[in-house]
Parts: sequence; C-alpha cells; structure tokens
Amino acid sequence: MEVKGQVTAEKYAADISSIREAQLRIGSFIHRTPVISSETLDAIAGRKLLFKCECFQKGGSFKFRGACNAVFSLDDDQAANGVVTHSSGNYAAALSLAAKLRGIPGYIIIPKNAPKCKVENVKRYGGRVIWSESNLRSREDTATKVLQETGAVLLHPYNDGRTISGQGTISLELLEQAPQLDAIIVPISGGGLISGVALAAKSINPAIRVLAAEPMGANDAAQSKAAGRIITLPETNTIADGLRAFLGDLTWPIVRDLVDDVITVEDKAIVEAMRLCYEILKVVVEPSGAIGLAAVLSDDFRNNPAWKDYCNIGIVLSGGNVDLDVLWDSFRK
Amino acid sequence: MEVKGQVTAEKYAADISSIREAQLRIGSFIHRTPVISSETLDAIAGRKLLFKCECFQKGGSFKFRGACNAVFSLDDDQAANGVVTHSSGNYAAALSLAAKLRGIPGYIIIPKNAPKCKVENVKRYGGRVIWSESNLRSREDTATKVLQETGAVLLHPYNDGRTISGQGTISLELLEQAPQLDAIIVPISGGGLISGVALAAKSINPAIRVLAAEPMGANDAAQSKAAGRIITLPETNTIADGLRAFLGDLTWPIVRDLVDDVITVEDKAIVEAMRLCYEILKVVVEPSGAIGLAAVLSDDFRNNPAWKDYCNIGIVLSGGNVDLDVLWDSFRK
Repeated sequence: MEVKGQVTAEKYAADISSIREAQLRIGSFIHRTPVISSETLDAIAGRKLLFKCECFQKGGSFKFRGACNAVFSLDDDQAANGVVTHSSGNYAAALSLAAKLRGIPGYIIIPKNAPKCKVENVKRYGGRVIWSESNLRSREDTATKVLQETGAVLLHPYNDGRTISGQGTISLELLEQAPQLDAIIVPISGGGLISGVALAAKSINPAIRVLAAEPMGANDAAQSKAAGRIITLPETNTIADGLRAFLGDLTWPIVRDLVDDVITVEDKAIVEAMRLCYEILKVVVEPSGAIGLAAVLSDDFRNNPAWKDYCNIGIVLSGGNVDLDVLWDSFRK
Repeated sequence: MEVKGQVTAEKYAADISSIREAQLRIGSFIHRTPVISSETLDAIAGRKLLFKCECFQKGGSFKFRGACNAVFSLDDDQAANGVVTHSSGNYAAALSLAAKLRGIPGYIIIPKNAPKCKVENVKRYGGRVIWSESNLRSREDTATKVLQETGAVLLHPYNDGRTISGQGTISLELLEQAPQLDAIIVPISGGGLISGVALAAKSINPAIRVLAAEPMGANDAAQSKAAGRIITLPETNTIADGLRAFLGDLTWPIVRDLVDDVITVEDKAIVEAMRLCYEILKVVVEPSGAIGLAAVLSDDFRNNPAWKDYCNIGIVLSGGNVDLDVLWDSFRK
C-alpha cells in the first residue's frame, strides 16, 4: 500500500466517521440508488462495469446527498433564517429540496443566462430564485446582499466538510452493493463528490483505486495534480456544464492525496458515452454524468498497463438533469 | 374477494408453481431489475408510484425472462437443433440472447420492413436473421421452411406457458421489493406479460388489483374483456409498436379472469408519459414501456371512484428499445 493512499483521521474536512454520521442523518431522505450493469457494455469495455445511478437521486443528481447533510447538520438557530447558495447547476435544485424538507427558506442565486431546465428544477423543489448577472462579482455581491437581508446561512456547493461527507455516502452504498470493485471512476469538478467517495471507499478498502474523469476543456484537476497545487483556468470549454468548477482549499488536499489518477476525455467521447447510456443502459444522464463511462472507454485508460488488472470498475453516473432538446442537437451534430 | 380473482392451480397455462420454478431456472441469467420512484411523479399522480424497471433487463425488455425460461425448459434433445420464432420486436432479441446462453442456434424470422434498431439488437445477441415479407403468410411459410430445414423448435413470443411463467417472475421480485402495492399496471398486447404478472401477484396477495394499459388504436383486449371472447382487429394504429399483438388462446383465459380492468390511452398521452420518464425518472423507455404511467395519469383512471383507494401502484416499465431519432421526432411533433 502506498502511504499516499492511506486515510488518516482529522486530516481532512471529512472522514469515515463524518460520512457514516451523514448516512444516518440523510438516510430517510435520500434514495438508495440502484447499481446496474450491462454485458454489452462490459464487452465493449473489456471489464465488468457497475454503474451507480445517482441520476435517479432526488433532485436528479448526487448533489442532494451533500445538500441534505449540510442543511440537516445546522442546529435550529442556525437554520431558522434559511440557507443561501449561488449555483445554476444541480446543487441549486438539491439545496432547494433539502431546505424544503427542513421547512426553511432556500435562496438560490442564479445568473440570468442559466439553462431553463435548471431554473425550473429549482422552482419545482421550492427554491426562491434570486437573479444575478452571470459574472462572479455580481453573484458574490448578490449573495452578500441576501445574507444581510435574510440572516440566512451560506452553503458552498462543494468546498464544505458537510457536503463532502454527504457525497461520501455513495461509497458506503456502492461497496455494499458491489464489494468486488477494484476501482471507482468519478467525475471531478470542484472535488466534493470525489473527495467523499475516495475518503469512504479507501477507508473501507485501502486497496481500492479512485480515478477522476475530467473534460479536456476544463482539466484543472489534472493540471493541479501534476503541479502539486491548485491550478485554475482563465476559461473552460466543455459540453459537461457540471464540470466547470475548480478545486477548493478543502477538496484539494483530498484530491491530491487520495485520487490515484485523472483521466481526461474529449467532449466527443462524452457525447458518445451519453449515447451508450441511452441506447444500452437505458439511463438518462447529463454530459457530466456520462464522463466516467467515456473515461473507461478511452484509449488512455485501455492502453495504460497500470490499469490493466482493474477488472471490476464502479462508475458513478452523477446526474441526469439535461435539457432534452439541447441534448438531441448534440447527438445529431 | 371476488371468485373471479381467485387463482386455482392447473386451470391455466401457468401457475405460481411454474413461476417459482422459472425463477429458479432463470435466476442466474436475468437481472433482478430495480424499483425506483419519484416524489415529483407521485405529486402529479396523487399516489405513490413504484416503477419496476424492466427496460434495464437483458435485451432491453421483460421478454428475456420468458424467452430464457422457454429455452432452458427444453431438454437437451429438444434444444439440440436450436429455436425459431418470428418477431420483429423485443422477443426476437430476447430469444437470440437466451439461445446464445444455452449454446444453441436462435433463428429469428424478421419482416424486411422491421426497424433497424430491432434488427441490430438481434444481431448483437447472436441471433440468425432470416428475412421474410412483412405479411403473416410469408412469415409463417418462412417459419415452416426453417423448421423443416433445421429441426429447430418453434417458440411463441407470448402464447406459451413457459413464456408466461418467465414473465411472472417480475411479480415475485416486485412484491418483495414493494410488498405494500395495492395494484399493478401492466402493458397488454398478446397478454404474456400481464398473465404471468397477474397469476403470481394474485397468488401472493389475492387482494391486489392488476390493471392492463392498452393503446386506443390497438384496444383488442378492452374489446375482448367487454365481449367475453377474443376480439381481433382488422388493423392497429399506435406509436406503441410492442402492443399491436392480439390475445392468444392461452393468455385469454388468464386475462379474462384475473385482469381487473383495461385502461385505454391515446398515443398523445403515451408520448407525454415517455417524456416524463426521460425528464423526471431519467429512464429511457419505449412507447410500450411508458403506457402504464400514461394510464395512471389518465382522466379515466383519476376520476374512477373504483380506483380512488389505490394508494401504492406498481408500474411495469416493460422495455426501453427505441430508435432515439424516431423517438425525438415524436417528442417534437
């Protein structure tokens, strides 16, 4: 065992204890999502693939686990005035739903150019939409204003120990459902998902490998791992709209120490993997959700001798929130 | 309990014993498909809906259960020369795969105008495609010729006790996964699926209701139930290409006695239900697969006082084999 693969307590923003606590806290609210497989895809990949279907999670993505854990970790006084986040993505819907379940207001700051289906999701789950301009400054200013006016608590979509712990519950379920896994492939963006997954999985089975899948057009995690420090990019360019965030100061140390490698894939491969999810698995995934399959089918992965012996691979299908019309156009390109 | 709801042994082509035997026979070959739910859809329906995802079954539909049971029920001498069927639908792929697993030839007679994706499915699973003209006479003549030349065994897609028993294993799983069900809604075509589901479900829980969902443009089962005898139609007209067959002499008595009612729905409602499956459930279903959801959302069902107290409803999402391009056009109409 490599030293870097070992999980030591209290070193990171979350650990196996906080993840098990999260499981108890959110267990009655979340879906225990199924793991499915396809021999047709196994034949294509040359390995056994086990897909953890977080696209079936409430809110349509894994984000609900972390949001739910964060919201229900607040004591009554903290929670009384509600919660705030700025997000145009899956965390916005997830936090809306978690706040609704707690019976407190969820204020969601959304840039005016956000996709229609994401805004609808927020409204569907009872979130209070507050518009901002699309630049970061406007989003932060709006957040500050909302915090002052409401006394609500700001929750970060990924750079938060409670969120990381919630996402880690995926591994607790997955390794019960598929204890034979040699490796788990997880999409990486801000690092909340993969941090939780890696902390829990390596605590349960130190030999398991955790690999990140990242779009070429937003490969800050690959660059960060290579540089040994957080790298941010001046701009990102990928169809995977959920994977454009950068690592935070709480997720970075976990990604640095516990993620065994980052596999980068082109958007074209993401779209092809999405099509396989639809046609073979019969599961609706968003581009970010399909990237794990794209990674395992990539030449980089197939031809790397280091990964030759990974026979049983878990893939987290992280979400399924996609505008079908937009999606269809990408298939037809 | 109504007398007509009671299941008596040896009266029909299958019974709970043959269904339990089927479960033992096919258990290692099939997927135990997950049951998923959505509070968003529950709110729309005004009831708790539990979706049995047979679209994730091998071959992409429930048909593999029956095909597998039929093929593995043959003794070695019977099986030696292979199996034949004429089908352009899901049974063709299912039988191809079952034959491959048994290590025998699977001859599939397919009309020349069959959808491309269905033919590809047959080939993917190792079936031997034999073309016929699209009329019934040509298909039967071709089948006779293949039987004479090969000595293979003809297997019927639904009018066969072994097939019905295989489909019945769905209820065994579903009532373990969701024992609280008050009713199960099942697509009806030739009646093989609903016969197996009804026999097993009512044997386990005589109080459970089994409802058929049928397209208005192929409503032979509704007409048959009303007339008290098998009615066939001069033509059918529905987007649900899997639901155009008519009841057989083995399925009809079961449908007559054990199916509590038939709910007919327009194609427009089927397309709308498909869209909900994609957008809310994140599951890819073919039109036939979505009809159960369309039925439970129909005014006929909602407004019928007889069904008012059905709070927990199982819906069989029967299959997910759909040409995505064709599908998309139907969404955009």
